[in-house]
Amino acid sequence: MKLGRILRESLEGAVQRLVVVQPEHGRVIDLATAEYQRLLGTGASADAARRLASALYPGSMSAAIAAGPTFLTAVARTVGALEEDSSVLSLGDVKWLAPIDPPVMRDCLAFEQHLRNTLTALAAAMNMAPRIPDVYYEKPIYYKGNPLTLIGHQEEAPWPDYSSRMDYELELGFVIGRPGKDLTPEQAKAHLFGVTIFNDFSARDIQALEMQGLLGPAKGKDFATALGPWITTADELDVHNLTMVARVNGEEWSRGSSSTIMWRVEEIIAYISKAEGVIAGELIGSGTVGRGCGAELGKLLKPGDVVELEVEGIGILRNRMGIPAPAGWMPERRTPTKQ
Amino acid sequence: MKLGRILRESLEGAVQRLVVVQPEHGRVIDLATAEYQRLLGTGASADAARRLASALYPGSMSAAIAAGPTFLTAVARTVGALEEDSSVLSLGDVKWLAPIDPPVMRDCLAFEQHLRNTLTALAAAMNMAPRIPDVYYEKPIYYKGNPLTLIGHQEEAPWPDYSSRMDYELELGFVIGRPGKDLTPEQAKAHLFGVTIFNDFSARDIQALEMQGLLGPAKGKDFATALGPWITTADELDVHNLTMVARVNGEEWSRGSSSTIMWRVEEIIAYISKAEGVIAGELIGSGTVGRGCGAELGKLLKPGDVVELEVEGIGILRNRMGIPAPAGWMPERRTPTKQ
Repeated sequence: MKLGRILRESLEGAVQRLVVVQPEHGRVIDLATAEYQRLLGTGASADAARRLASALYPGSMSAAIAAGPTFLTAVARTVGALEEDSSVLSLGDVKWLAPIDPPVMRDCLAFEQHLRNTLTALAAAMNMAPRIPDVYYEKPIYYKGNPLTLIGHQEEAPWPDYSSRMDYELELGFVIGRPGKDLTPEQAKAHLFGVTIFNDFSARDIQALEMQGLLGPAKGKDFATALGPWITTADELDVHNLTMVARVNGEEWSRGSSSTIMWRVEEIIAYISKAEGVIAGELIGSGTVGRGCGAELGKLLKPGDVVELEVEGIGILRNRMGIPAPAGWMPERRTPTKQ
Repeated sequence: MKLGRILRESLEGAVQRLVVVQPEHGRVIDLATAEYQRLLGTGASADAARRLASALYPGSMSAAIAAGPTFLTAVARTVGALEEDSSVLSLGDVKWLAPIDPPVMRDCLAFEQHLRNTLTALAAAMNMAPRIPDVYYEKPIYYKGNPLTLIGHQEEAPWPDYSSRMDYELELGFVIGRPGKDLTPEQAKAHLFGVTIFNDFSARDIQALEMQGLLGPAKGKDFATALGPWITTADELDVHNLTMVARVNGEEWSRGSSSTIMWRVEEIIAYISKAEGVIAGELIGSGTVGRGCGAELGKLLKPGDVVELEVEGIGILRNRMGIPAPAGWMPERRTPTKQ
């Protein structure tokens, strides 16, 4: 099953709606509207049908997933009872949102080839020897992103004023389906809800600068992360064997496979669940597949470039880069205190 | 005004409630219950009073703050109409939650003395020269924490299985009151809602290991962050002139002042708002005040230790360390691919 989120106009402004996506029929189904109509057909009053439909299908995908197995069971029932009506929209006409609104968002670095390639480049920029720290081979490490700056399919990615070196990253996005803590990898398998495409846009100049502070990427990543176009549920995918392709303005720049991942997704989920736990709707990026970004290829994005990430079994996530924002306030450099 | 969150028993399990705290009267006021009773007194039906009260005072503090000025105006009206009743609880009897449930959580490193002291210690552990990277003086850098593992006043801090070097950190927690993007520091002043006490518990062994991976702290911080006991609104505090004290088992270990901060809070908010924006309810840690953690003093916490952080104008945040969790699954080390 493919599940997404779109924006629709209502009497009180734009509202977020969950949809089932049927690319083979070129359509999406607005689940709240379809369920409202199904309930009317069973004799529910309009008020009761609205109330029940919006409880099952809120605007938040993470809230919907948090209902547990009830959610996907309900989707199957809603779609099974579908008649052609105002809940069915043409795939090409909708305004996409990021398919998940995660309560917390992490991004791993689980492809060894990407890490070798970029550490070599980064080390040169930071004037350090290109030594891969042991920790990469000991734990599936990750940074935490900003879940409030996710953008959807077809949304323009903003270009911050502080960067002149813009890049994309071709990744998978893993969505957690149920809560758990201190899981083993065997247990963790059942906690994967589905997979989406994750474009970890990166401002390479500030990223290299701020990573010297050892607190991890922040402004270098958090201005925008593209996600979508939708989530494919885990039962429909062989997660560890997916072809991944990136095109810039129609030209293929990157090609890889999730089969080259160093940590399996269940190991990543199990590690994250240690001491902290995971909950429904969390988002975990895989890290960039080998040769899956411009930094590995000696290339950069330009304003207006269109980046398409395609992953087998999911679809194509397309985003255009915006133009650089006008220069705003910047912090004034401090002078170190004399010792 | 002092605002917190507590857990109360209801017909359907424990529910989160927003409270006004009056330490001088040794009491807290459950805002939803008090507003329900106020509305009943004005002639509202019980159903309407419950509906309106829960819309103003949901369990989520960030959702309440997101209403804008309506929230604090309503609190003043609710408290002004208070009669002694079931909405008033004894300060000593309540179960505290973290006062804010932030949609995203960052933690800065804005005190130079802490950074000098810990970088010296960290550099020794990482076998590097103790050079402070320039970026600390260029930008108010930060890492992002896990907002799902915040604990409240009096809650026990879990001790993860992967650590034997446990520490506290004495910090301020800044709560954002209204949305804004690309703010100047002058504009950013109005975006601070209030301040709480922030204990950034730290597992120093894994923190030192994972920071070598350049993605920032994760397992070294994300198992627990204590917050509270409540938020003091910004109008009641001189944020840049607060005495900060830490005690372990009643013995003073740390003493500092927020006057030694290198970046003013409005500069921190303005920087974070660049390209990303901020929204109501976000949480920003100040970073540890100089000599505000064990690592700077050559000390560590032991299982069962009681850590009290006291900040002028706010109160005392007290948490006991738990005992180490039993050893669970750990990732199996990978062998680097031959080049």
